[in-house]
Amino acid sequence: MNFDEIYDRVATRSSKWTLMASGFGITDAETLPMWVADMDFRAPSFLSDAVREVAEAGDFGYFAHTDTYREAAAWWSKTRHGWEISPDRIINTASLGNAIAFAIQTWSTPGDAVAIFTPVYHEFAMKIRKNGRTVTELPLVAADGRFTLDFDACEARMTGRETMLLLASPHNPGGRVWTVDELRAIADFAARHDLVLVSDEIHNDIVMPGFTHVPTALAAPDARSRLVTMTSASKTFSIAGTRLGAVIIEDDRLHRQYANIVNRADLYPNLFGVVLSRAAYSPEGAAWVDQLVGYLAENNALFHERISAIPGTLVHELQGTYLAWVDFSRLGMTDEELWRRVTQKARVLPSPGPNFGTGGEGGLRFNLGTQRARVEEAADRLVAAFADLQ
Amino acid sequence: MNFDEIYDRVATRSSKWTLMASGFGITDAETLPMWVADMDFRAPSFLSDAVREVAEAGDFGYFAHTDTYREAAAWWSKTRHGWEISPDRIINTASLGNAIAFAIQTWSTPGDAVAIFTPVYHEFAMKIRKNGRTVTELPLVAADGRFTLDFDACEARMTGRETMLLLASPHNPGGRVWTVDELRAIADFAARHDLVLVSDEIHNDIVMPGFTHVPTALAAPDARSRLVTMTSASKTFSIAGTRLGAVIIEDDRLHRQYANIVNRADLYPNLFGVVLSRAAYSPEGAAWVDQLVGYLAENNALFHERISAIPGTLVHELQGTYLAWVDFSRLGMTDEELWRRVTQKARVLPSPGPNFGTGGEGGLRFNLGTQRARVEEAADRLVAAFADLQ
Repeated sequence: MNFDEIYDRVATRSSKWTLMASGFGITDAETLPMWVADMDFRAPSFLSDAVREVAEAGDFGYFAHTDTYREAAAWWSKTRHGWEISPDRIINTASLGNAIAFAIQTWSTPGDAVAIFTPVYHEFAMKIRKNGRTVTELPLVAADGRFTLDFDACEARMTGRETMLLLASPHNPGGRVWTVDELRAIADFAARHDLVLVSDEIHNDIVMPGFTHVPTALAAPDARSRLVTMTSASKTFSIAGTRLGAVIIEDDRLHRQYANIVNRADLYPNLFGVVLSRAAYSPEGAAWVDQLVGYLAENNALFHERISAIPGTLVHELQGTYLAWVDFSRLGMTDEELWRRVTQKARVLPSPGPNFGTGGEGGLRFNLGTQRARVEEAADRLVAAFADLQ
Repeated sequence: MNFDEIYDRVATRSSKWTLMASGFGITDAETLPMWVADMDFRAPSFLSDAVREVAEAGDFGYFAHTDTYREAAAWWSKTRHGWEISPDRIINTASLGNAIAFAIQTWSTPGDAVAIFTPVYHEFAMKIRKNGRTVTELPLVAADGRFTLDFDACEARMTGRETMLLLASPHNPGGRVWTVDELRAIADFAARHDLVLVSDEIHNDIVMPGFTHVPTALAAPDARSRLVTMTSASKTFSIAGTRLGAVIIEDDRLHRQYANIVNRADLYPNLFGVVLSRAAYSPEGAAWVDQLVGYLAENNALFHERISAIPGTLVHELQGTYLAWVDFSRLGMTDEELWRRVTQKARVLPSPGPNFGTGGEGGLRFNLGTQRARVEEAADRLVAAFADLQ
């Protein structure tokens, strides 16, 4: 796989490349998109071939082979993450966004609160709010270029109305791979407040050398009676367009509750989501991910070194995900000034820090899931755009 | 297009061909499946090619070209059905099953009732019940080999708890293409009882020569303030595996209410659903459908003639859909006897009549969306299986 191949995603009407104007008012075609979390690599041949095979076979009707995908997902969980699950514990949804929305609808009612550790994936709060629930922000502490947990502060934020805790593990946008101790402490916190613990592990496969993602189910086995784990092949293999999510629930009661909402909505996995996820969860897929992670680690090393050289910036240690968090707060700029400088002077489009909630101010999230030349170009432009401050 | 080509859907793990054992206990591999409503033809090249193009392009990430599919769907509505709609009136769901379920959730609450004209697509009642609502059956009258409406009888069935009327137009399983007068009478009935009228028009493209499907929106324009129309390319082009439904709502309030439930569930159309539906809603698609309907009409003529020759059977006139309704009630058999004879003696698997609700007793629905040779074989087997009664 040649990850360096420059690949035109304007032609494919990729959201990342073609929604810069409608999303951010950016019409300059030279702007490098480093926002929404998918990757710019051409799909590997084992995925394209799987699609071609379906085209050859020529049957797009009702199908009965979701079982083979679920077996592949269970195999992947066991071989890549050491977590043995039974395929029948997997409930499929139409994307993990849909999975999160249904979790909110299942384990809270309007007026209840859902707790999240902020800054965090901005869609968490959006999905909570659009379902008429309240967000309880539990602020992470940024120290030494990484986000950590402060449970005393968390306790003080709890209102008593929380019914669910929604966790990003690995953490997005901070790039943390939570340790076993941290995951246990999170599970204890959920138990103390009797919360359903929803662990969104969509970035679980993109973990930098030296770090290990541990599924919450393994880190905190005592929490399984309140635990809901979410995964998908969509981030790892950049197949988010196929919209297939997997929700793994070992507890019978929680499983039944969640299966019920999916059943009532009459949702079934779509053909190409099943086909592509099955092809992804394979030995070829595993070998490709190993290469990919190596490439992303090099992207990260380059980006980290160059951006860290800008005085006043603090690039967080990227432990997992391909999303680098840069803290510009010591520059003393407003978020508006920072945004203008980065998008208009550097002509790089990251995700705005404040969107991720409290603690996101002064920060920006840069998507490194792209060709090396583009990461270099973005780094060069950013360095130049901040040169006057040196 | 060679509709006669025998095509193996066991290899593709089609539900219709591979779920006969789990669904009906039928393990005899020679049984001809004529149940679930998809067709046995190999996908036409304009669909397979569209899939191949996506495989070639190699981008399965977040995409921004749903607009082109919606424009194609609006073009199809206008050119094939004379109904001009604005693309922004289309809300997409993950299949029409999901669309119906969300309509039930939007326009009724647990304890409310949803009215349906029975016998009707068995999933209507299932979706109503699994959402904790009550089914109000409004029985159709079978007369002269066709189902008709009897509004006096309908009035007597209404309980006052109904908030929604769910209509299949064309009618499934009866194969009726409702006339403009009938559709107006249905709309008047909905108005009289202040019901949201949900018109499921998924079979709108499969209309036999001599009949014309009129969208409810055109037949009863006064009903638009209470009207929700559902369509999909999934039946016409046998792409149900892609799970994409379209809900067309002209009324602003109803549109907002429905968009809200889809938004809260965080549902977005999937890539291959969009790509295949767009390829379907094209001039090539239109030419193919014209050929298809001609072929299905010949299937129907053959089936109708042969089965009508069995003494005591009444084959309903197929006006639309590829689903033939056969009334065996004059044979005086129980439904169990009839089922055994058809599935075990004739080794043909239709859909059981009683599943479609009141008025379905003594009937069976046969899916004619298959190769001529298979229709002939099924007809021969059925004639032979009933020969002792002659």
